[in-house]
Amino acid sequence: MFTDLPEEALRRWQSRLRRPDDFDAFWATTLSDAREHGLGLAVHEHPTGLATIRVQDVSFRGFGGDTIRAWLRTPAAASRPLPTVVQFVGYGGGRGHAEDALFWASAGFAHLHMDTRGQGAMWSPGSTADPEGSGPAVPGFTTRGIEAPETAYYRRLVVDAVRAVDAAAALELVDSERIAVLGFSQGGYLALATAALQPRVATAFAFVPFMCDVARAITITDREPYREIGRYLATHPDREPAAMRTLSYLDGVNFARGARVPISFSTALMDATCPPSTVFAAHNAYAGPKSIRVWRYNAHEGGGLLDERAALARLHELWGR
Amino acid sequence: MFTDLPEEALRRWQSRLRRPDDFDAFWATTLSDAREHGLGLAVHEHPTGLATIRVQDVSFRGFGGDTIRAWLRTPAAASRPLPTVVQFVGYGGGRGHAEDALFWASAGFAHLHMDTRGQGAMWSPGSTADPEGSGPAVPGFTTRGIEAPETAYYRRLVVDAVRAVDAAAALELVDSERIAVLGFSQGGYLALATAALQPRVATAFAFVPFMCDVARAITITDREPYREIGRYLATHPDREPAAMRTLSYLDGVNFARGARVPISFSTALMDATCPPSTVFAAHNAYAGPKSIRVWRYNAHEGGGLLDERAALARLHELWGR
Amino acid sequence: MFTDLPEEALRRWQSRLRRPDDFDAFWATTLSDAREHGLGLAVHEHPTGLATIRVQDVSFRGFGGDTIRAWLRTPAAASRPLPTVVQFVGYGGGRGHAEDALFWASAGFAHLHMDTRGQGAMWSPGSTADPEGSGPAVPGFTTRGIEAPETAYYRRLVVDAVRAVDAAAALELVDSERIAVLGFSQGGYLALATAALQPRVATAFAFVPFMCDVARAITITDREPYREIGRYLATHPDREPAAMRTLSYLDGVNFARGARVPISFSTALMDATCPPSTVFAAHNAYAGPKSIRVWRYNAHEGGGLLDERAALARLHELWGR
Amino acid sequence: MFTDLPEEALRRWQSRLRRPDDFDAFWATTLSDAREHGLGLAVHEHPTGLATIRVQDVSFRGFGGDTIRAWLRTPAAASRPLPTVVQFVGYGGGRGHAEDALFWASAGFAHLHMDTRGQGAMWSPGSTADPEGSGPAVPGFTTRGIEAPETAYYRRLVVDAVRAVDAAAALELVDSERIAVLGFSQGGYLALATAALQPRVATAFAFVPFMCDVARAITITDREPYREIGRYLATHPDREPAAMRTLSYLDGVNFARGARVPISFSTALMDATCPPSTVFAAHNAYAGPKSIRVWRYNAHEGGGLLDERAALARLHELWGR
Amino acid sequence: MFTDLPEEALRRWQSRLRRPDDFDAFWATTLSDAREHGLGLAVHEHPTGLATIRVQDVSFRGFGGDTIRAWLRTPAAASRPLPTVVQFVGYGGGRGHAEDALFWASAGFAHLHMDTRGQGAMWSPGSTADPEGSGPAVPGFTTRGIEAPETAYYRRLVVDAVRAVDAAAALELVDSERIAVLGFSQGGYLALATAALQPRVATAFAFVPFMCDVARAITITDREPYREIGRYLATHPDREPAAMRTLSYLDGVNFARGARVPISFSTALMDATCPPSTVFAAHNAYAGPKSIRVWRYNAHEGGGLLDERAALARLHELWGR
Amino acid sequence: MFTDLPEEALRRWQSRLRRPDDFDAFWATTLSDAREHGLGLAVHEHPTGLATIRVQDVSFRGFGGDTIRAWLRTPAAASRPLPTVVQFVGYGGGRGHAEDALFWASAGFAHLHMDTRGQGAMWSPGSTADPEGSGPAVPGFTTRGIEAPETAYYRRLVVDAVRAVDAAAALELVDSERIAVLGFSQGGYLALATAALQPRVATAFAFVPFMCDVARAITITDREPYREIGRYLATHPDREPAAMRTLSYLDGVNFARGARVPISFSTALMDATCPPSTVFAAHNAYAGPKSIRVWRYNAHEGGGLLDERAALARLHELWGR
Repeated sequence: MFTDLPEEALRRWQSRLRRPDDFDAFWATTLSDAREHGLGLAVHEHPTGLATIRVQDVSFRGFGGDTIRAWLRTPAAASRPLPTVVQFVGYGGGRGHAEDALFWASAGFAHLHMDTRGQGAMWSPGSTADPEGSGPAVPGFTTRGIEAPETAYYRRLVVDAVRAVDAAAALELVDSERIAVLGFSQGGYLALATAALQPRVATAFAFVPFMCDVARAITITDREPYREIGRYLATHPDREPAAMRTLSYLDGVNFARGARVPISFSTALMDATCPPSTVFAAHNAYAGPKSIRVWRYNAHEGGGLLDERAALARLHELWGR
Repeated sequence: MFTDLPEEALRRWQSRLRRPDDFDAFWATTLSDAREHGLGLAVHEHPTGLATIRVQDVSFRGFGGDTIRAWLRTPAAASRPLPTVVQFVGYGGGRGHAEDALFWASAGFAHLHMDTRGQGAMWSPGSTADPEGSGPAVPGFTTRGIEAPETAYYRRLVVDAVRAVDAAAALELVDSERIAVLGFSQGGYLALATAALQPRVATAFAFVPFMCDVARAITITDREPYREIGRYLATHPDREPAAMRTLSYLDGVNFARGARVPISFSTALMDATCPPSTVFAAHNAYAGPKSIRVWRYNAHEGGGLLDERAALARLHELWGR
Repeated sequence: MFTDLPEEALRRWQSRLRRPDDFDAFWATTLSDAREHGLGLAVHEHPTGLATIRVQDVSFRGFGGDTIRAWLRTPAAASRPLPTVVQFVGYGGGRGHAEDALFWASAGFAHLHMDTRGQGAMWSPGSTADPEGSGPAVPGFTTRGIEAPETAYYRRLVVDAVRAVDAAAALELVDSERIAVLGFSQGGYLALATAALQPRVATAFAFVPFMCDVARAITITDREPYREIGRYLATHPDREPAAMRTLSYLDGVNFARGARVPISFSTALMDATCPPSTVFAAHNAYAGPKSIRVWRYNAHEGGGLLDERAALARLHELWGR
Repeated sequence: MFTDLPEEALRRWQSRLRRPDDFDAFWATTLSDAREHGLGLAVHEHPTGLATIRVQDVSFRGFGGDTIRAWLRTPAAASRPLPTVVQFVGYGGGRGHAEDALFWASAGFAHLHMDTRGQGAMWSPGSTADPEGSGPAVPGFTTRGIEAPETAYYRRLVVDAVRAVDAAAALELVDSERIAVLGFSQGGYLALATAALQPRVATAFAFVPFMCDVARAITITDREPYREIGRYLATHPDREPAAMRTLSYLDGVNFARGARVPISFSTALMDATCPPSTVFAAHNAYAGPKSIRVWRYNAHEGGGLLDERAALARLHELWGR
Repeated sequence: MFTDLPEEALRRWQSRLRRPDDFDAFWATTLSDAREHGLGLAVHEHPTGLATIRVQDVSFRGFGGDTIRAWLRTPAAASRPLPTVVQFVGYGGGRGHAEDALFWASAGFAHLHMDTRGQGAMWSPGSTADPEGSGPAVPGFTTRGIEAPETAYYRRLVVDAVRAVDAAAALELVDSERIAVLGFSQGGYLALATAALQPRVATAFAFVPFMCDVARAITITDREPYREIGRYLATHPDREPAAMRTLSYLDGVNFARGARVPISFSTALMDATCPPSTVFAAHNAYAGPKSIRVWRYNAHEGGGLLDERAALARLHELWGR
Repeated sequence: MFTDLPEEALRRWQSRLRRPDDFDAFWATTLSDAREHGLGLAVHEHPTGLATIRVQDVSFRGFGGDTIRAWLRTPAAASRPLPTVVQFVGYGGGRGHAEDALFWASAGFAHLHMDTRGQGAMWSPGSTADPEGSGPAVPGFTTRGIEAPETAYYRRLVVDAVRAVDAAAALELVDSERIAVLGFSQGGYLALATAALQPRVATAFAFVPFMCDVARAITITDREPYREIGRYLATHPDREPAAMRTLSYLDGVNFARGARVPISFSTALMDATCPPSTVFAAHNAYAGPKSIRVWRYNAHEGGGLLDERAALARLHELWGR
């Protein structure tokens, strides 16, 4: 069943989220602080049984100089810079196994698949730590450090994502003029955030993105992970203003308002995890060229491979085949 | 939590299933009938956006001469016969999209991914019809035609799987001396059945296989799809003997008792869909060289990619790299 | 809780479903094709332990000439043509046991209880096969053959229902001027369809009917069996137009628009299986004399026996007692 | 799935329940007290739309002289005493509508369908009050008055059942030499209790009976209504001895130990509401001629109509047709 | 997620409930009848291991002269009349253990914690019987005696609550000019009812109250205990008018319309048990000084201790510290 | 229903867990490291509306010198050192509100209620941060740092608990010869651990303790929080040996084997969260004087207040009243 407003209303939906006056300054400072740690790029061949795809184990410095891991998958025969997809992972998962997610490299792209700090234990393995702790938090990641924008988990993760693009651009097999960012759910949110924050991004694909119009999301769904935030506020009702302030620096809608590169969204009308009005909130607020694919009968899987196939077609359109 | 017997007991577990005296004759007749329809092999290039992998749309004649579809994925550069994996799909799914499941072709294999008749609408798309109807049946596939071995849905599907190997062997890019069969769940069952019925199979991988020791399975789990059979018997208790007779011609345990080629099983101790004692029933009954990988903390996903990675290592061992 | 719109809105609700221009032609052809197979009526005494009710096992030719079974229950003492109720069964069930459903015969009616092809294994037994297979389909019946009106399962079932009335009219103990059709859920849908298609029907009772305003139903409920269609469309989003076209030939709303005989509907405001707006869609579109009984606090059971008791009172009103 | 011990173990299962020394005295006193209120039998024609069945609204005095209602259904043409089935209803339901449950009267029996005091609002309507209150109790009936045998709800209900047989025997259309008692679940329990306490009972049918080996039942299932008792004991752990003492006067196993008339049980191996070991506990303890039908794949519905059909066959065997 | 209307709409929400003309007369008669039994106050020291709090076991005569129990908790050192809180318990619970709920006595108040007749077995123990039985009712308390206002369970319970305040006022350590009533859920409802009916009440705290705008509540939630009423009406649809009439004498909204003392409500926007529009219905109808605290992210726990802390602050404000 | 072995088997149950040879050394080093940070005790009056209880906000240095918060509740009139209960909180909760948990202070004890680092947002608020991050972990706390004993979350938490007793002993109102530790679930585990590690503990109360025989627990229950560990191992099966090694340094069974002070356990036979065999594993291994209270019909709430009341009685026994 449809989980949200009728499609006509979705297309007109405007988030009531306020954008902090110092939103851009906050992120500018955050990123310049992070960049002071240097990139620390390291690339190691990772042996697999694959023949057509080469996998390398990449690490770079993310937020606070912390080491972030990623897989670089490329066509085995590639020797020149390739158009590139930097992919971010959904909530709870890590970069997975070296042999996972062969689509983009098989399509002739360099594919940098970033690990997610501290995650990577729910449904796909990761190997990147989050060395930062937090105040009282609901099991999960969304409420860690929610007391202030400075301590929020997602601030760290967004920085990692921006730095992943820096890392990509520094790789030999990457054509730094042709970098796209892409992800589903939490990964779609990071694609949206990097579209706004990272000038090296040429285009973005935010499929069924998480962390958009959060203040609304937590009132219209009981599904995890948005539910974590509701639990936190039920236990700490006095901290609602602080938490809402923190979230306003992290919300995908506020990234959308400042972004300029072309972006493709997808959303699913039966998605109860990231309800479509929260995705439309980001899409409708997006300041650059944009499109959105609506999956009428799908849930949070969205279009799945069909979203990726469309992204590939779009990239062929932009950059030739 | 563990869903079945302790591991020590599993290793000793013997199914009480009887093997019909005419089991081998039944299948010999069934297969020779099916082969009278000819193979009707057709192969068409299927355009995708992929670069390192070539996809072809294959069709051949399965049970009753019905048209069965499959994807053939090969390394784009391949021109000589390759070691080959014929893969069968889990319950409810179809062969999926052309760009799915790139692992085996990326590993340098020919990969024939057989569609499942009538399925392919629950979680991955298919395009193969099952033109046969059935008597009264529970929504699903396991009880269609359960009145008699001759009318049973799984008889048709097993024939399709055997013929898929015939089809593979007839393909130019397939080295017919190096054909493995592989699958998870229903696909693992079909791998086991073809290991027993199809002499062209060199080795088999039956991961968390379905349809083994069915008479026990339906008494120890309430999960679909085994639950379908319990529902049928609750509504038609008078047909239990006939249904059990039918199932005895289809049960993976009885295939295992007649099989001779090396096989690798996997099972998961927290699998409530295909409980481990039913998998061990097949493993322990298997008449050829065999091994089994036990995933202690996994559910029906079993080892997932790790099962496939192990299969790849095993094939490298058998056939060189 | 109420599962749908407020009652005032329900009473005004108009489905947006389009009626195909050739809807009537499609069914006219379908029925004349079916009638070419002849009726093939066969009636056998069925011994039971009952004393006041006689049960006969009836069969006739339905769609494609396929054999359809039914129970004929009559007062044991009856020797002259009786007013008659032809009843259709809800989803998943069959005609049940001979000794089930004694209400109508005990009330002095001939009661022809039609079996449902291929169903009859979920909650009540049946013995009628559906010899037709299908393309990829979700476990269940609603998506079988959904690719085209010609192949759809419900086309076959509607024909069976129309032919059941032909069969009833040909029975000695049936007064062919006094035939009512009746059913709950799927059975209510078939009563509605036969009210539109079968001129021998004098009046109809469509209680909590299924398959009305399907395009809306699948967006407002997650319950089976409507959920099957949503699953199909999630896996085959490209086939939505074809599926919606097929459904437009089958939808109860389109039957309602062409029907002329008096009909009594019922619906329940807490019904999440066949939500009330979908029933009102059919009622409000119905072109003949009509009434609807609203059960405020019931779920999909509707009024149950109270619906049947009201039907009996209505028939006494129409035909005397 | 099977909800209890393997069938071989069930057949040997012996309850550890102790039988109070004054069990028989307790019930003798209880019944003679009840009988002091006189029977107060009243019979009124109840008009329905039925033709072959006559329905009368019966009332009599049960425990404490309270008025208990019942339906008497007989073949419309009957004028001489008939073999009779007194039926008791499952937990939560009442005697239902006059037109419900036509099987026995249609089979030529007098059918006295006793209402259940205070129940009759969950799934079928009743019209009999329970004027007695209780101490603190879990919502439901099992823990009302559980402090002592004298105050227990089920003491009252068992008396009503015994008196229903007295009432039946006093009815003109009842052949008092041919009275059977029958029921499912709570109704099966009451059939068992009356088999032990009421000498007018010629034979009994206790299908999937409730309230047997209760001390075990509450440790092996979480389903309602047994769960009520566990909830009570969790909140009032200090009252466990008193509650267990009370239950020992009510437990079907203790009735079984004192019963002598032939009885037919049924049980279902997938019944999680009244697990089969609790039914076998009663069967194995039963002191008279006995049989048990085991439904392997059914849940708490047991054999449903098939149990009743078997009961009819058995009565034909005993009493002729 | 929010379970009801947006907050703006809630603030304007007006129940459509009609107030019976004889509402006040009904309750005046009911209370004067009850008072004819006298108060029968009894107070016994109850030994505990506590040092700062003294606990006494109180009993008094409630509805029909039935004995009602309560705990009286006071600061151990208190010797003069204290400001007092009379607290009522939520559905299913009893007054609990002597050592429970130490907040009010620790704050220097006399705390009379009334037991709930017949309840006290679901989650906290009670020791007060409800000697009245009922007609057919759904397991639980809401539908007992729902046939008429005179027989309704909640009539008895409201009388008990009113009499509890009479009892409090008669206690030595209670300052009868400073009595507040307080409760959560069912307890909040009783606080509201006593605010309207009992002139000795100085102020009331109705937190997340139950039994308000019941006719609406049962259409917007499926949670127990409101669900009991829907079940009853589904089984007894003919009794809807009588049941609705009965409820109109019990509904918190109708108490609110006649109340004059200051009251503090709380409600939670994620409360699915007592949805916020039903609480606002009472608040908006309340005829005296009133306030409402809205917990945005909480469910039926409401503010929990924070509600009580606010009540304490309010009482300090009213009565000094 | 019972969730584990029969009680007789529980009483004999021996965990197969191995105790690392350097278990004692590991903890000795860990604690001496922690103590190098000094205690940093700070105590501030915390104003509440309470009259009989005084609340102070305490902080001290726990693991790594991190600041740990606690409430100190004492009888308002106390001026001399009191017998003391140090209480630890269950999983997900924090020390709660100042006015919560008044039992121990009302009983005349000093009550130090320790906050739980990083928790305190699920069901009761906390205000203590855990500044340490972790490698990939499942949402929750059990798998944080599970790679090695040195990095494990529970190592830090156990140290905090040990230091809480040091802090208690340093408080003016605490009689350092009469310190008991107490908790439910996670709190019970910490009581057990401090009983083993902290010589200042005179006696301990471990009610329904968590983190005992973890290797078994994760195979017999699917409930959170044990489920977290199973999820981790399903995603990282290669890390099972490391994780099991880590857990062996943290498991309550291994603390039990080295403990000497008297302890009282409780367990509940219907507890599916901390199944009774895991509690008996600790009890049966406990090297000092011990007792265990078995709640037959309770779930994870165990005896609740009744466990605390028994603890109070025991302390009165030990220390006088």
